[in-house]
Amino acid sequence: MPKISERGRMIPSSPIRKLTKFAEIAAQKGIYIYHLNIGQPDIHTPKELWDAVKNIDLDVLAYSPSSGYEDLRIKYAAYFSERRDLKNFHADDILITTGASEALLFTMLALFDDGDEIIAMEPLYANYVGYSLSSGIQMKPITTRFEDGFALPSIDDFEKTITSRTKAILICNPSNPTGYIYSDAELERLKEIALKHDLFIISDEVYREFNYTGQPHKSMMTFKELENHVVLVDSISKRFSACGARIGMVASKNQKVLETILKFAQQRLSPPTIEQIGAKALFDVDDTYFEEVSREYQQRRNALVDGLNQIEGVKCHKPNGAFYCMVQLPVKDTEHFCQWMLEDFEYEGATVMMAPGSGFYATPGLGKNEVRMAYVLGVENLKKAVITLEQGLKTYRERY
Amino acid sequence: MPKISERGRMIPSSPIRKLTKFAEIAAQKGIYIYHLNIGQPDIHTPKELWDAVKNIDLDVLAYSPSSGYEDLRIKYAAYFSERRDLKNFHADDILITTGASEALLFTMLALFDDGDEIIAMEPLYANYVGYSLSSGIQMKPITTRFEDGFALPSIDDFEKTITSRTKAILICNPSNPTGYIYSDAELERLKEIALKHDLFIISDEVYREFNYTGQPHKSMMTFKELENHVVLVDSISKRFSACGARIGMVASKNQKVLETILKFAQQRLSPPTIEQIGAKALFDVDDTYFEEVSREYQQRRNALVDGLNQIEGVKCHKPNGAFYCMVQLPVKDTEHFCQWMLEDFEYEGATVMMAPGSGFYATPGLGKNEVRMAYVLGVENLKKAVITLEQGLKTYRERY
Repeated sequence: MPKISERGRMIPSSPIRKLTKFAEIAAQKGIYIYHLNIGQPDIHTPKELWDAVKNIDLDVLAYSPSSGYEDLRIKYAAYFSERRDLKNFHADDILITTGASEALLFTMLALFDDGDEIIAMEPLYANYVGYSLSSGIQMKPITTRFEDGFALPSIDDFEKTITSRTKAILICNPSNPTGYIYSDAELERLKEIALKHDLFIISDEVYREFNYTGQPHKSMMTFKELENHVVLVDSISKRFSACGARIGMVASKNQKVLETILKFAQQRLSPPTIEQIGAKALFDVDDTYFEEVSREYQQRRNALVDGLNQIEGVKCHKPNGAFYCMVQLPVKDTEHFCQWMLEDFEYEGATVMMAPGSGFYATPGLGKNEVRMAYVLGVENLKKAVITLEQGLKTYRERY
Repeated sequence: MPKISERGRMIPSSPIRKLTKFAEIAAQKGIYIYHLNIGQPDIHTPKELWDAVKNIDLDVLAYSPSSGYEDLRIKYAAYFSERRDLKNFHADDILITTGASEALLFTMLALFDDGDEIIAMEPLYANYVGYSLSSGIQMKPITTRFEDGFALPSIDDFEKTITSRTKAILICNPSNPTGYIYSDAELERLKEIALKHDLFIISDEVYREFNYTGQPHKSMMTFKELENHVVLVDSISKRFSACGARIGMVASKNQKVLETILKFAQQRLSPPTIEQIGAKALFDVDDTYFEEVSREYQQRRNALVDGLNQIEGVKCHKPNGAFYCMVQLPVKDTEHFCQWMLEDFEYEGATVMMAPGSGFYATPGLGKNEVRMAYVLGVENLKKAVITLEQGLKTYRERY
């Protein structure tokens, strides 16, 4: 029997995926699960998308252009240039991708060769490690600390990590999984490092609408000096609660970068046609939509984080963005605890599913007393989830 | 300015893509273009898909499972096991992908490491070379000859090409771009080679419904001895004229292979949700649909190939499958000729766009007097395209 690839064997199975079967068994036993484990919002997708899809009148479901429909790219660009902070942003700077996932994979394939290195702050979005392995590059994590509220590490930490093979820094701003939003000073620091070492910056800003600072989000793409360095990754998934559409985009003012990414995009022919038509309509949605959604998420964040911090031994910062937080729990191994919560625990017929922290660190051994929680449930359910967690921790600590 | 990757620079720009701008200019001049260059069928997508999409009643456009919706996998598997030749084919053998393109890329990432080699018969689907470059593997072409009607090369040719790094043979059956369908004896020969050298066989069978032999299509997956070796790649794109849906699948009886491909699928979260719902409905389409489509394509093939062979110096076999043929033209460089047809020629206000043969060979220098034509137009238009081509060749040969 022929063997699968070393690369295939190396791609880590996320701890959260290991939990799925235990969640299924719990659900079969009739236990209600508060799903704080995934970033699938419960917010309704705007009606504009559904209407556009229902009104499609085509005979042939044909390929779209490899870079996506031009009218979608025009609307996408206008959204950023007219309603957000990217003033000089054009349809030709954009390539539509099948989700931000594809944007990240193609960017890595286009920019890096085998053995090149990329720096990312951990805790990080687990799939960054997977995309790196897929493209044969080395992920060099720089650890941000819970005690510092996951702030950007010092220039020293970067200088120690940068080698002759380092080609890029990958940031997620606002961050999944920490909810951290970089300050202007931190973005300036990243700019200086990129210019000094001639590095690309891949800026994943899919959560930019989920910003509770009261200040507008500042994109890495606003730095004129970094026009050749920055690759922006975005998606409609979280912004419009349309994760299943798989419509994202990659943008750069560096035309060589965009042309090269296009070569990879041409290989896969095109992004999905129907979902692009639906996506186009979303850019007609008014900003009041985001204001409402943002208010809702702030209430959820407050309910969850305030509740968590009242549990003995539990610590959580109040994050400024996205809809995640990293939470310290008074247990030694959250992988074990999260599985136990699904396998052996219930309180009033319910339990809580969380994502073990270890899955968000590229450095082995880190995050063992942390979990990531996504506040994608309503306030009442979040409050019940907190009570359930509190009871679970009590019972667990008596036993272990 | 940081540099893009060597891999990005190496990915060939297909000659057909270079022609696009000339086609745009011709169209702007008001010249009608017979598009024989692309595999975008003009056949209407079955109404079942559109109805299913219009009837979607969801609040949230959520992620689907990474392996695709289970009910779609069940319908897909039943299609092959109940209506086609894959008797022992189950939903668990299948993973839904975003088009066959993604299926091929993930298969290569899952099976091969940097420096591994894959064998494919050329002329080949140009993107096979791109996927190989993306996954860091070496494409080792074995040339099939126009004079032999593109039949499978001898075992000798394989033995000469196989090295210790060879891990797979990639076939396209029926073939894009030749329209060739492998005989049972040829499939047996492939089986013997795979078993002797312990190779995977990646079998791209997306055109299996386009079969004009009068005999049922035989899938590589029907060989019980090859259960651990065969990876089947399929798509709804051509079968149901639904290219824009980007719904494909990869299947294997080798669970280790499927599990590893799933890891790459999990990284990109899920295939598009709406298009999966549409795709599911397509498997309710009756076989009479294919019979009609197949009759139509046979008429087109006959009109095109018979017409072409009446032009002086033009040669074309009558292919048994798909909707492509490789055509020998009496010119030295079809890249130049195809560009000239768009740039400098018209006959009664029209011209013909074809895909230069060189784009379908991995060996540099081959295919220079060949073009690929796709008979994706109605018979009347094909006849006019043939007349236009004949006039073009006459004028071109007087000049060059």
